[in-house]
Order: sequence, then C-alpha cells, then structure tokens
Amino acid sequence: MTLIVQKYGGTSVGTPERIAAVADKVITTRDRGNRVVVVVSAMSGETNRLLALADQISDKPVPRELDVLLATGEQVTIALLSMALEHRGCTARSYTGGQVHILTDSAHNKARIREIEDKRIHADLDAGHVVVVAGFQGVDEHGNITTLGRGGSDTTAVALAAALKADECQIYTDVDGVYTTDPRVVPDARRLHRITFEEMLEMASLGSKVLQIRSVSFAGRYNVPLRVLSSFEEGEGTLITYEDEKMEQALISGIAFNRDEAKLTVIGVPDTPGVAHQLLGPIADANIEVDMIVQNIAPDGATTDFTFTVNRNDYKRALDILTRTATIMGARQVSGDNKIVKVSLVGVGMRSHAGIASTMFGTLAKEGVNIRMISTSEIKISVVVDEKYLELAVRSLHDAFGLSQPPKV
Amino acid sequence: MTLIVQKYGGTSVGTPERIAAVADKVITTRDRGNRVVVVVSAMSGETNRLLALADQISDKPVPRELDVLLATGEQVTIALLSMALEHRGCTARSYTGGQVHILTDSAHNKARIREIEDKRIHADLDAGHVVVVAGFQGVDEHGNITTLGRGGSDTTAVALAAALKADECQIYTDVDGVYTTDPRVVPDARRLHRITFEEMLEMASLGSKVLQIRSVSFAGRYNVPLRVLSSFEEGEGTLITYEDEKMEQALISGIAFNRDEAKLTVIGVPDTPGVAHQLLGPIADANIEVDMIVQNIAPDGATTDFTFTVNRNDYKRALDILTRTATIMGARQVSGDNKIVKVSLVGVGMRSHAGIASTMFGTLAKEGVNIRMISTSEIKISVVVDEKYLELAVRSLHDAFGLSQPPKV
Repeated sequence: MTLIVQKYGGTSVGTPERIAAVADKVITTRDRGNRVVVVVSAMSGETNRLLALADQISDKPVPRELDVLLATGEQVTIALLSMALEHRGCTARSYTGGQVHILTDSAHNKARIREIEDKRIHADLDAGHVVVVAGFQGVDEHGNITTLGRGGSDTTAVALAAALKADECQIYTDVDGVYTTDPRVVPDARRLHRITFEEMLEMASLGSKVLQIRSVSFAGRYNVPLRVLSSFEEGEGTLITYEDEKMEQALISGIAFNRDEAKLTVIGVPDTPGVAHQLLGPIADANIEVDMIVQNIAPDGATTDFTFTVNRNDYKRALDILTRTATIMGARQVSGDNKIVKVSLVGVGMRSHAGIASTMFGTLAKEGVNIRMISTSEIKISVVVDEKYLELAVRSLHDAFGLSQPPKV
Repeated sequence: MTLIVQKYGGTSVGTPERIAAVADKVITTRDRGNRVVVVVSAMSGETNRLLALADQISDKPVPRELDVLLATGEQVTIALLSMALEHRGCTARSYTGGQVHILTDSAHNKARIREIEDKRIHADLDAGHVVVVAGFQGVDEHGNITTLGRGGSDTTAVALAAALKADECQIYTDVDGVYTTDPRVVPDARRLHRITFEEMLEMASLGSKVLQIRSVSFAGRYNVPLRVLSSFEEGEGTLITYEDEKMEQALISGIAFNRDEAKLTVIGVPDTPGVAHQLLGPIADANIEVDMIVQNIAPDGATTDFTFTVNRNDYKRALDILTRTATIMGARQVSGDNKIVKVSLVGVGMRSHAGIASTMFGTLAKEGVNIRMISTSEIKISVVVDEKYLELAVRSLHDAFGLSQPPKV
C-alpha cells in the first residue's frame, strides 16, 4: 500500500471552507487506496495575529514562550481538519509535534529536527485512520515546545516522509508546480513535470519561492520524492527527484532570477594574499550576506579588482563598510550599483554539454544586454545585468533554449 | 517558603493590557517571598471564537478534536503571561497540561484529573522561576489532549495546589469575594471573610456562580485552603476552609437563591412501594436533572402527593413525561408551575442552633410570602416561593438574620 505525506500551507487552510476542500482532497487520495499522513500549517493570518499579541506584551518576547504561542496556530488547524475528515466519515487522528515526538534541538524559533517517532503514526495508519500532524513544531529533549521557523511545515512534511519511508511527499501550495521561469515575466513559461533536487535548490535559492530550501535539501538527503501541486487546481504538479534514465533530457530546466541584488566593486587593491578575507571580513561581521563573488587580476598585474553582490537592503551599509576597509587597504576606487539583477540558467544537463555558456552570452549580446558579472557552478550559470534588461534577458534566454516546448525524449 | 497557586480566569487575562496587570500581581506575590504557580484560562472570547470555527466545519465535532482545538486557548495565555513576566525581569516557565502530565481519564470535553506530576514544577520553583500552567486541560494515559469542560481552570488550580501541597489556592475572578447574598438584590450584602467548604458548596450549587462546584469539592477533599479575590481590585477576598475555632460564629453565612426552577406535582398517586422510582425513572431517563423532592402522605391515607423541581428549561419536557407516567399509575392529577424560585439559608451554625427554621418561616409569613415547598439539609433550609416574592424574601431574611453586620466573635 502506498504511503503519501501531504502538506497544505496556510493559504490552503485559510478558512473553514478551504479546510473542508482539503478534507475532500485527502479523502480522494485515501479512496485511491493510499495511506495518508497530512501536515498542515497555521491558517493564513493566524501567525501574524499571534505575533501581534506578543508584540503588545513585549518588544522582545522570550524565544521559548514565542514557540509555545506560535505552536497553537497549527494545533488549531489539525483539530479543524480532523473534524472535517470525521464529518465526512473518514476517521482521523490529529497530533501536535510533541505528541508524535518530533524531536528537535533546543534552538527556539529556528529548531532543527533530529528524530521522529513513527510507531504511533504507523499504528494509526494500520487501523485505517488518516493521521494529521501539526507542521512547523516539535519538542526538545526536555519536552519544551520548539518551532522550526517560518515555512517550517515543508520541513516537517519531508522529515515525516523520510521517517515513515513514505513513497511520496506532496507539497500543496498556491502554484501548480515549478515553472521554467516566472510566468509573469514569460507568459509561455512551461510547468516542469520533473526536476532534480539539485536544480530545485538552485531555482529555490534564486527566488522561485515555491518550496523552502531547507525542505528540498532535506528531501534530497533522504531521497524522498517531492511533488509540488496546487491546492486549488487539479493537476499532477512537478515531481522533484534524483536524476534517472527516465528523466526529461533537457539541457536547461529553467531560468531563475533575483531582483534584490546590488553589486559593490573595489578597483586596484594591492594583490596580496588574504585580500578577499580582509575585504569581506568586516561585511560578514556586520551580518551582511554576500552572494556572488568575482575577483580578477587587474591589467597592471600588481593589483586586483574585486566585485561582490549583496541583498539590495544591505547595499548602503555594505558600501560604507567597504569604503572604510578599502581606504585602509590603499585601493584605488570603490564603486557600487544597486540597479542590477541576477539571471541564472539552471540545468543538470549542462554538466555533460559544452556550449551552453556561449549560447547564453551570445543570446544576450544579440539583444544588446551588457553582462556585468558572471559566475558559474556545475549546474548553473549566473549573470548580473542592469535591472532594465531583466525581462528582455529572461525572455530571450527562455526562447533561445526552447523552454516553452517539452524536451525531446 | 510559602507556596501559592493563583488562578486567573478569562476576563482577568482578556487583553494584553490585562495580562500585563496579572504579571504585576504575580510579581508582587513573589516579591513578598512566596513561590508562585499560576494557572490561567483562555482569553475571554477565545473559546467562543474557536467553537465558532469548529461549528463551520461540523455541526457535531468529534470530541477528541474539539479538545485539541480548545486547548490552544489556554496555551496562548500561558505564553503571553510568561512573556509578560520575563519582560519584567521575572523568570517564568509556561507549561501545557500535557507538559506537566496533568493525567486525566479519557472522557473528552469533560475529563477528570487523576494525577499530576509535580517534579518538574518543583524543580522550576527551586530554580526561582514562576511556573505558569494552562488550566482546563490535560492528557489521558495515551497522550491524547483532554479538557475538563468549561470552568475547568478552577479545578486545575485546586488539583495543582493539592499535588504541590500548596499553602493556599487563590482564585482571581471579577468579584472580590463571596457575599452573604447577591448584592444586586440586597445592596448591603456583606463580603464574607471566611466560609466553610460545605457552605460554599451549598452557596455555589444555588447559583452564586463565583466558583465551580467541582473545584470547591475537590479543595475540600484535599483540604486546600481556597481564596476568592478580585483581579481588578485590592482586597483579601474570601477564604474557604474547614471550620475551626477562629471561625466567625455566624448562625447563617448567606442566602442563596435560584431563579431557574420549575415545580411539578402529582396528586393522589396510589401509595405503593417504589412510587418515587416509578415517577422519577422516566424523568432521569430523559436526562432531566431533579433538584428538590418532597413527598407527603395525602389526607386520605391511601394515596400520596409528590412534588419535585427541575430546571426551568426542562419544564415542558418533564411535564409531558410526568403526565404520561402519572396517568398509567392512576394518579388523580398532575400540575406544574414554572414561575417559582428557590431561596436557601446556608450556615454551618444551624447544626447547633434550634429555631432557625421557625425564624425563617416567621419572617416570610410576616411579609405575606407563601411557602410552596420546604426542604432541609444539615446546613441549609430551602423554600420554594412564587417568583414575584424573590427579592422580598431574600431581603427580609437577610435583615432578619442580621447578615449586613459582621458576626459577633
């Protein structure tokens, strides 16, 4: 018998009517002969309501008690969904994170799952029940309530699927799958039937906010097939697995982009060992996350040029810090630009195919898009371009790599 | 070091501001050198909000899931109160019923407490923390969340006080103590400094809804001194204990009354053994609770007259059932009256004093109040009178027994 873990997010359970619709979906899955475990988030708006209450009590609520407070959000949903299932004649059992011993570390507000007790859930499934588990929460070894941080319900679902050795973990959300790129930018963007974990990680970290990065990497580590589907429309969604022979043989799976980038450049730093560390150390100390980093020897051979990107919100702070550091180090010039974006081609196919980078650069050149920075990894090529070129760059690349068409098998 | 359990009800924790005020009260108690355990209810309105959600899901929610849902109410409050305490520099630890193993039976929505694990709480108190426990909830032996039914937070507080061997259990509410009678009926009703458990039980069951009956009887059984105080005003409230030598030597402690009564009478039932059972059996089978019962032999010596009271809401149903039963039994007549009330004198002093009943009846006669029914117990005399005489009866008795004045010592 197939065991499926389904996860429904806050929007999917946002009202009693939507919870009723979720119950219908769960029952459909069960009636097809599957065992079903359901993980749910707090009803949309609930977490913010609770945070607003805490805010009226203290400007800096103690993390332990914040977890006790926030954990009630999912507990309300598990109860309501189980009632809805029972109301439809489907026996169900709800459990908080603590009740099924989702054991985490003690890092309140951002705990990590260590272990899940599967006995009770298996016993309920054996008895023919649907099991409904509160996402986002657990308990530490002392029995204190912990939460995994926002979006942690995805992680709960994947961790449960791994612990129960489920056949598939289905993440229901408000989009119907993973697309070759953002359909708002490229109207004929195509929904992918399958994508690999590695590709999904690159897509997710670049702004395709379909899934939490942590849950994808977790699913990859435990080899849990992950499927993204819509709560509101029918469809098979997108399956995220490891590469196999039956996989679509696309060179490129998708194009991700990130509008929130800003770039900073130091020109003419004396080229001594440790220059990158000296430049970036103070930035890291200020808790500013650095994304792309590119370093080139300058034409004079004695100095180096150094460029990196940060989140646009951190731009001003980073520029101040960098200017101070660079002055001390005797650099010639510091400059910055916060009107840039990052566009990335993602695809496991590029591992075995040459020429992808040159097609990319050629396409952009033909459209007159100036590339300001390049960075590559095994399954990704990222370029930084001026913000005004974002749509043009994404559309021309989507077209050049034929992403609107299903790949040839 | 004195250990005090304090309980704050829904109105006392109804807003973040009120929760802040409760935190101040708790800290004042702790700063006087006491160890403090606090039990809280859900914020007022929260339980109804949750019930309304459930109602949109199912007209008859499964009891197990209703408990999972409702238990979130108190969990929100324990988190917020602990935050408020920590915000004021007072270390606090919140616990759900499950976390401190408030073990109950499995009767969802109306569970009874069996046992409480006191180790964790004592360890926290030893470490100097205030402990905040969710009222109204527990877990059964399988770890399922249970609730004690509405008002169960009082019971939680008393049970905790008993388990922890606390020196006093303080119930904070929206009245400042137990009065000789309802001040809305008798403006110079006096707050009692002390009252015995037995008297309190009689007062509570007669409509002085200050405390849950169950929690009073629980406190009596485990000899936990109970104090009723106001959350909003200063004052020492009313202490409920066993009778002792220092006790106020009042004949009568108070006058309770109940407006929700209706009376039913069968006249001329053949006086055979088991007549009461035959008449009341079908009433009990219909889940109608019977309060006072009076039976008298009729003047003819061969038949008997039988009268009892029920809650006014059950009057019509009870009358139907009784008419059917009485007809079968060959009774002469069935009549009823739902415009009656019950007025009761309560006082442990009447055990050792004769003449109280006659003073009571004399007072009522002088005012022209016709007594329809009389029933007595060791520490209570109840009369049923027409509804229109309620205020007159209560005021004249309050006056006749000098209840506005503190008792002479």
